[in-house]
Amino acid sequence: MIKTGDKYQHKTRYTQEDVIGFAKVSGDCNPIHLDPEFAAKTPFARPIVHGFLSASVFSKVFGMLFPGNGTIYLSQEMKFLAPVFTDRDYTAVFEVTEVNREKHKGIIKCSLVDDLTGKECISGTAVLKNNEQFV
Amino acid sequence: MIKTGDKYQHKTRYTQEDVIGFAKVSGDCNPIHLDPEFAAKTPFARPIVHGFLSASVFSKVFGMLFPGNGTIYLSQEMKFLAPVFTDRDYTAVFEVTEVNREKHKGIIKCSLVDDLTGKECISGTAVLKNNEQFV
Repeated sequence: MIKTGDKYQHKTRYTQEDVIGFAKVSGDCNPIHLDPEFAAKTPFARPIVHGFLSASVFSKVFGMLFPGNGTIYLSQEMKFLAPVFTDRDYTAVFEVTEVNREKHKGIIKCSLVDDLTGKECISGTAVLKNNEQFV
Repeated sequence: MIKTGDKYQHKTRYTQEDVIGFAKVSGDCNPIHLDPEFAAKTPFARPIVHGFLSASVFSKVFGMLFPGNGTIYLSQEMKFLAPVFTDRDYTAVFEVTEVNREKHKGIIKCSLVDDLTGKECISGTAVLKNNEQFV
């Protein structure tokens, strides 16, 4: 059973192979993610991880770990505050801000934080349904 | 140059191979996406495409087509209104609702629509920066 105020953390890391794999399945071959020469001319200086790939750790955690099995994703809001790079350690940080036990719904604040700098790279909020956990 | 009221459409389709590929790179191996037997016991009756994969068409269009090159993703809000299935045709539909020419920012309403039923499966809003298009 998950309740308001519950917290969860999950360590994550992205490789350039993940970025290439995501480009393939999504069709998002924006050179800012794939081409070091192109990326060198941008404010980021080197290739950045797709926002949708870096934020997909939220989906992974919600579907598999917290709340886990049976989770249905109702909505996700996310702000991309800082670039996410490959081969660096990040932590996805979660806090439950509201639970509606009748509708089995929960609102979870989620962030992706750079372990080295402590900087929040993604800030977001998700609304989930889970008949077994939000009870 | 992109201006308020501009519209754009992009046809898309997902395969089970895309779903498996996304599960690998994201680590989101929720059986609702991968296991037909598990999915059969859910209200969806069969495996559904990950929300982050189906919505990644927004990222693809923004980064490569509309506005295209040089786009920086600032935020994305998305509501998952109906399940997205493999081997069906969908259309991603976009409309520019606001442009800030000084800050080179634009707000774009985006949806994923099921071609067969006309049903809106994802409804969202994105905020983008593009120094060449929002001028």
